[in-house]
Amino acid sequence: MSDLVTFGETMVRLSPPGQERLERASELEFRAAGAESNVAVNAGRLGLDTTWISKLPDSALGRKVTATVEAQGAEADVVWSDEGRQGTYYLEQASTPRPTNVIYDRANATVTTATPEELPTKRITAADAFYTSGITPALSDTLEETTADLLELAQDADTTTVFDVNYRSKLWEPSEARPVLESLFPDIDVLVTAVRDARTVLGLNGDAERVARDLAAEWGFETVVVTRGEEGALAWHAGDVIEQPVFEADTHDAVGTGDAFVGGFLARYLQGESVPVALEYAAAVAALKRTIPGDTALVTPDEVEGVLDRSDDGIAR
Amino acid sequence: MSDLVTFGETMVRLSPPGQERLERASELEFRAAGAESNVAVNAGRLGLDTTWISKLPDSALGRKVTATVEAQGAEADVVWSDEGRQGTYYLEQASTPRPTNVIYDRANATVTTATPEELPTKRITAADAFYTSGITPALSDTLEETTADLLELAQDADTTTVFDVNYRSKLWEPSEARPVLESLFPDIDVLVTAVRDARTVLGLNGDAERVARDLAAEWGFETVVVTRGEEGALAWHAGDVIEQPVFEADTHDAVGTGDAFVGGFLARYLQGESVPVALEYAAAVAALKRTIPGDTALVTPDEVEGVLDRSDDGIAR
Amino acid sequence: MSDLVTFGETMVRLSPPGQERLERASELEFRAAGAESNVAVNAGRLGLDTTWISKLPDSALGRKVTATVEAQGAEADVVWSDEGRQGTYYLEQASTPRPTNVIYDRANATVTTATPEELPTKRITAADAFYTSGITPALSDTLEETTADLLELAQDADTTTVFDVNYRSKLWEPSEARPVLESLFPDIDVLVTAVRDARTVLGLNGDAERVARDLAAEWGFETVVVTRGEEGALAWHAGDVIEQPVFEADTHDAVGTGDAFVGGFLARYLQGESVPVALEYAAAVAALKRTIPGDTALVTPDEVEGVLDRSDDGIAR
Amino acid sequence: MSDLVTFGETMVRLSPPGQERLERASELEFRAAGAESNVAVNAGRLGLDTTWISKLPDSALGRKVTATVEAQGAEADVVWSDEGRQGTYYLEQASTPRPTNVIYDRANATVTTATPEELPTKRITAADAFYTSGITPALSDTLEETTADLLELAQDADTTTVFDVNYRSKLWEPSEARPVLESLFPDIDVLVTAVRDARTVLGLNGDAERVARDLAAEWGFETVVVTRGEEGALAWHAGDVIEQPVFEADTHDAVGTGDAFVGGFLARYLQGESVPVALEYAAAVAALKRTIPGDTALVTPDEVEGVLDRSDDGIAR
Amino acid sequence: MSDLVTFGETMVRLSPPGQERLERASELEFRAAGAESNVAVNAGRLGLDTTWISKLPDSALGRKVTATVEAQGAEADVVWSDEGRQGTYYLEQASTPRPTNVIYDRANATVTTATPEELPTKRITAADAFYTSGITPALSDTLEETTADLLELAQDADTTTVFDVNYRSKLWEPSEARPVLESLFPDIDVLVTAVRDARTVLGLNGDAERVARDLAAEWGFETVVVTRGEEGALAWHAGDVIEQPVFEADTHDAVGTGDAFVGGFLARYLQGESVPVALEYAAAVAALKRTIPGDTALVTPDEVEGVLDRSDDGIAR
Amino acid sequence: MSDLVTFGETMVRLSPPGQERLERASELEFRAAGAESNVAVNAGRLGLDTTWISKLPDSALGRKVTATVEAQGAEADVVWSDEGRQGTYYLEQASTPRPTNVIYDRANATVTTATPEELPTKRITAADAFYTSGITPALSDTLEETTADLLELAQDADTTTVFDVNYRSKLWEPSEARPVLESLFPDIDVLVTAVRDARTVLGLNGDAERVARDLAAEWGFETVVVTRGEEGALAWHAGDVIEQPVFEADTHDAVGTGDAFVGGFLARYLQGESVPVALEYAAAVAALKRTIPGDTALVTPDEVEGVLDRSDDGIAR
Repeated sequence: MSDLVTFGETMVRLSPPGQERLERASELEFRAAGAESNVAVNAGRLGLDTTWISKLPDSALGRKVTATVEAQGAEADVVWSDEGRQGTYYLEQASTPRPTNVIYDRANATVTTATPEELPTKRITAADAFYTSGITPALSDTLEETTADLLELAQDADTTTVFDVNYRSKLWEPSEARPVLESLFPDIDVLVTAVRDARTVLGLNGDAERVARDLAAEWGFETVVVTRGEEGALAWHAGDVIEQPVFEADTHDAVGTGDAFVGGFLARYLQGESVPVALEYAAAVAALKRTIPGDTALVTPDEVEGVLDRSDDGIAR
Repeated sequence: MSDLVTFGETMVRLSPPGQERLERASELEFRAAGAESNVAVNAGRLGLDTTWISKLPDSALGRKVTATVEAQGAEADVVWSDEGRQGTYYLEQASTPRPTNVIYDRANATVTTATPEELPTKRITAADAFYTSGITPALSDTLEETTADLLELAQDADTTTVFDVNYRSKLWEPSEARPVLESLFPDIDVLVTAVRDARTVLGLNGDAERVARDLAAEWGFETVVVTRGEEGALAWHAGDVIEQPVFEADTHDAVGTGDAFVGGFLARYLQGESVPVALEYAAAVAALKRTIPGDTALVTPDEVEGVLDRSDDGIAR
Repeated sequence: MSDLVTFGETMVRLSPPGQERLERASELEFRAAGAESNVAVNAGRLGLDTTWISKLPDSALGRKVTATVEAQGAEADVVWSDEGRQGTYYLEQASTPRPTNVIYDRANATVTTATPEELPTKRITAADAFYTSGITPALSDTLEETTADLLELAQDADTTTVFDVNYRSKLWEPSEARPVLESLFPDIDVLVTAVRDARTVLGLNGDAERVARDLAAEWGFETVVVTRGEEGALAWHAGDVIEQPVFEADTHDAVGTGDAFVGGFLARYLQGESVPVALEYAAAVAALKRTIPGDTALVTPDEVEGVLDRSDDGIAR
Repeated sequence: MSDLVTFGETMVRLSPPGQERLERASELEFRAAGAESNVAVNAGRLGLDTTWISKLPDSALGRKVTATVEAQGAEADVVWSDEGRQGTYYLEQASTPRPTNVIYDRANATVTTATPEELPTKRITAADAFYTSGITPALSDTLEETTADLLELAQDADTTTVFDVNYRSKLWEPSEARPVLESLFPDIDVLVTAVRDARTVLGLNGDAERVARDLAAEWGFETVVVTRGEEGALAWHAGDVIEQPVFEADTHDAVGTGDAFVGGFLARYLQGESVPVALEYAAAVAALKRTIPGDTALVTPDEVEGVLDRSDDGIAR
Repeated sequence: MSDLVTFGETMVRLSPPGQERLERASELEFRAAGAESNVAVNAGRLGLDTTWISKLPDSALGRKVTATVEAQGAEADVVWSDEGRQGTYYLEQASTPRPTNVIYDRANATVTTATPEELPTKRITAADAFYTSGITPALSDTLEETTADLLELAQDADTTTVFDVNYRSKLWEPSEARPVLESLFPDIDVLVTAVRDARTVLGLNGDAERVARDLAAEWGFETVVVTRGEEGALAWHAGDVIEQPVFEADTHDAVGTGDAFVGGFLARYLQGESVPVALEYAAAVAALKRTIPGDTALVTPDEVEGVLDRSDDGIAR
Repeated sequence: MSDLVTFGETMVRLSPPGQERLERASELEFRAAGAESNVAVNAGRLGLDTTWISKLPDSALGRKVTATVEAQGAEADVVWSDEGRQGTYYLEQASTPRPTNVIYDRANATVTTATPEELPTKRITAADAFYTSGITPALSDTLEETTADLLELAQDADTTTVFDVNYRSKLWEPSEARPVLESLFPDIDVLVTAVRDARTVLGLNGDAERVARDLAAEWGFETVVVTRGEEGALAWHAGDVIEQPVFEADTHDAVGTGDAFVGGFLARYLQGESVPVALEYAAAVAALKRTIPGDTALVTPDEVEGVLDRSDDGIAR
């Protein structure tokens, strides 16, 4: 029985070394990453017992994905299949004024056919919490249904449901996304959203606090976390709104910062810590993530404490 | 105006360094390759003016493909498109008893929607020769039609048509392949086939000479080339059958040996050399290919002459 | 509950790329390996549910070790400690007439202080089988005792005990090793030994069959497996001796061949297959291992079947 | 027929990875670059049909050069020769206070013997524009003459001539450079110069605007572009002086920024856009270049538009 | 006869490329470094004739160490031994808020058993100066004695003794370090200390000047150098205190900055330059070091002059 | 005072990894090598005190050369100069039927201007032996004279002179080489030549023994060593001819095998061992060399003994 189960797509990640252009690279770094396995890894390293469930092609590429997840500290419980393909994304890191660029190559991924019947749903109903994100229902009609079913199933089992809006403009339009997401909200306990997504996709107005209060009021969430990039995050919980600034970070790889935040938040929130404590922990994990290549916050609890204490400085020797 | 135009899919090729397993690799070599661009490159380096035509996604991955082809010495004239994806294959090199393994990830590639209307077909009708392979019609219904149309169009323009059966069991069954291939044969002047494919797919019996003679008799080809792996190749032409053994090679990367053979053959055959001369040249190019990483025979005419002369030995200094 | 639990040291493995000399290398490949985790990985990939137990330093180096084991398909259940250091070995691959060289740097490794009290011994008593090797008692006096205790504990719980003599001349002298090993034999069900070790360390004479029969007669083992390098292996079981030649292999990395053999053997033997079937399977896994960099046989059951069928040939595409 | 033809030396570029010192590096990045092929590539990617002409040794090194140019999107039309050698430069990237260092090893390069008679000068006379730089006449007496001849030939054919002063203190003294450069000015339509070179080499005084006006007045150029590093550029055209600040950039590799500026400028200027439009475009291309390893601005028109719109931000996904 | 002899431990240094985490790295950069060989190298490159003496295991790892020292410009005169092991450290570079982390694996290093009897002490007595650091006596009881003996021996031979406090909290506690260090002070001519170490370990109070004056007063040093990180350094000499700010540097690898400072200082101080001149030179060398990967200041005198002149700017070509 | 001093050119060596073609490589291995420094390194590692003298450009490239030589175990005593350039060669490793290819880029190397006046000739006159090869006089007229002068100087000082014919067809014609080499022979004590060079360049006939006897007879050498590639070597000494077969080797990098042979031979011959002993030792060193990347035999005396004993087998652990 896990503390946290997550469900979603994990892709192969291919990226040129340094800032080389994809078009000219002669070798690519080969990793695997996805919002839901990232959260499982991040929370799993920080004290929770976590499992990521999914559906993968029965191939060396699928095995690359599970090997990566398990090497980092989460359990992977996947359905192996001969249908579909391994979702892939190409990541080209850059610096101002060149934007970091992502090419998704995830159509027809094996996971897009995953149904509750074949997934290890007992993992979910036996868990304390279940997490997925707005990427999952965007991937296929089947996954839209599966996402709804899994959230409902979790709710029925009193498993806390956590959902990150995670809007991806390369997957769907705001007008497509909004009704799907809103149909899921009644089964969600903890909602995480970027303030930008709340505006673009959910049609909300006002500042982050306004957004958090409106979401809480309209949908009755237990907790709403709103992230604002460099301006920090805030959370609405039981009528209160708590602000959390970012910890300063010298960014090496920004991809996965949001998942680091969520993983850190849940590592505390699900262990009964207060929302302010969980938010601050989340911000520290997110700051550490930015210094680490790859999509996950490959850190230890001691390292997070070091950031919170601001005790680490320079070279430890 | 080119001496040789080729049409087909060129994929991104991703392979672990050395003999590392794909599942455990942390970086992949990043190349691009496909039978038809390989032949264009190979022949283009050995004296012909060659152009590869195709359809590619308008992305860094598509640009990787054209950059690779043009860097190696053929021209690339492609239609850029926003539909479809970049075909990809993963190659895991191995040694006895582990087979070198290929994972194709080429479904829904942009090229699968290519029609004669959008392709630069004037390139074909103005060329001396046109080459494609049995991979192309296997990729989609559209490409099955396009292949037929392009061969017919070439024939009508008195462009010599060259076709390599190149059967890929991961793409279609022999029973699917045979009628499609046979429907193309009337428009083909020069047929290349592995003796194994002739048996498995085309239902022919007997040794390679029998196969060559039967193919020539049934379909009226100008020339039939039959390859037999380590046992060398032979060609039927104007009633004669010419045998050509392989040149000894210490194999470093066997992928693309067949395309090297065809490229070398055409580099001579299309310049009016006799079939025995072209066959021997082809065998020399194929042997050189086996020493070179990647799918193409990145060689010079001088190097081929060195093999033919058996004049090169040890270290040249 | 696992099918197979193994206990022993897993070291960090540092090796220059290709055949570069350690003295001149500017980068080292960074892996982790040890006989007992190798066996857990190898058997775990081929159908058994396996767990490796050990004691590691609570550091990034210790985490490298568990990440490596878990990424490859076995579970790692380790005691984390602040005492001792991470055992390390440097491996310099070479070719004739230069021997592949190993520099062990494993003194005072954390594992050398492991006692039954702190290890998860319930894993062992609940398992079908327990495996360790002659390396373990050679590492420290504490481990000599621990090895004896764990084997006895397993025996008492009706867990099948499997032991590979695995003599390491850099760790102890034959005269030291013999009494220690012989004191363990009464608690061992399945003994594996190289014929060379049986002669040098255990003082046995005659050919491999003689050695197997003598060991069985003297110690009452259920099964004795004797390996002879290029000459293949044989096993004594229930009075019969079965011979198994090696499968031809083009060796890329020979380290870990013995552990691949044992992993393959146990994957069949512990599932109730006959000894000849298990031996042939073991030989196929060992041959595959030799083509793979690193200490483990990172293969799939299908690939082993391919070797047994001799069905794989050349490039699969 | 090309829109732009460039002529000059392209060298092999060898550089240690990261900031490693050349003296200690054990591997070098292997690229090819030169001001004139850089400009051909940069402009060729941004809408012009460009050709770089030169003379190269008939060797793998010479082929490395043409492969690099053609892979990046310009055509290379070179004279192959057995005389001379491949020019080379070693580049050691550094950061404050260590200067990025260049070691030229370009004496006796094959190109230093290039004469108009052997070069494909019809390319120049048929083109809209011809570009070379002050590096070319500095390389040899022959090239001093050839540069003069090619510019005259271009002028006679109504091909717009573009010239970048590009003073290299490792090639010649200001006192040598000035008369040579000034002898070329009468045949130049568009002059580009760093304000520093204008002072050091051409003996001009005052600020950049003064320099531009003085150059225009004295030599009757159609357009004069003066660059000032971090302070941006300006251009004199038809009596007006237009200022263009730099776009902010997080510099990864500063080499080739000037050529990116010129390539971007010409991509617009030669297509009839106004000077302010061309200058702004040039500044955007130069800013992008600074984020890209290697000497060229390996970008797309869309990416330049993104900078101009300031629309790209963070990670595109 | 050398100008400067140094004695101490040099370790193998293993570090992941870029900012990758050690736990996930698949290859490590392989260097060798230690305070005393760093100083020998740094001073040796800047005009002194320097020799590093030590004791190493007679293995490829030991040879890696001497090869590294000699390649960089100091002589290595070591005692080879079969006892002990090669000291090692793992270095994980990071950025804010993640601290650069060092894992020492140096227990039982061969050097820890080095005695004056076996070391080439004639090198010391014949030299102008002898340098060691507070790391050396911290490594073993034997080395505590050896350090004292060597300093005394040097003093007796009128060799100037230089000592850097170099406190390492991973090796010993302040309360252990203080009496040991203070017992050495009477035999030391030039003392270098970080102001932080002076406070933490030596129990001094006040600002850096106070610390320098107090040390000079209490122990009668010829010269005291106190470093303050980003705030620069100062030196007490003959009653005067000289301040030296840092030169601005864009840090690439901060490890070894202190040794670069000392090496630069001694390169001038031991050649009879004044303390202010030596301090400024030291600061320039330290700034250069921060731009260079590895522990040493792999620079030339010309490059140091460039920093002092502030004459180098941008790209030299 | 050294046992052996060598003089000649050492070049930078640039080679693609594995068997990649130079034309397509994106990185090159960066080493330094030359016959005479190779011999100094090889003999220096096997018991002699050796010094290589030469003239190098005062640049990072020149420092790369001395760093490489000194890291490997010979002393480098070079004249630094601002004239000339660093000699370079590109090496493309290949396998049958593709020849390993060398592109020399050594014209106008700094060493080509070296004169006895500026070289540290006291090193030679104080040494037991002096070695250079037929490459040296082929590099320039100045070096032709310098070679003659150094050999004469050595002879006058009773320093044993050793000379390897080392004919390089890319440097000169046999008809040019013969008179130059023969003019040096009167000052040579020990001549080494490939039998092929003896025939092609020196015009000798017959088998290797005939060649050795004829050379000894005509020029009065103390010892003549004739190498025959795979057929082994033989030596004429004091009227006797001793044959030495090769030791079997699995070749990884054949470049430098001849220098390994000479280095091994001199390591024994100059220490007074008999010619048969020295020849066998030479053959063992040459076999080891073939397993090692780079031009030198980076081995230890123990490893050579292992080959002579045929005692090393498989993996040492």
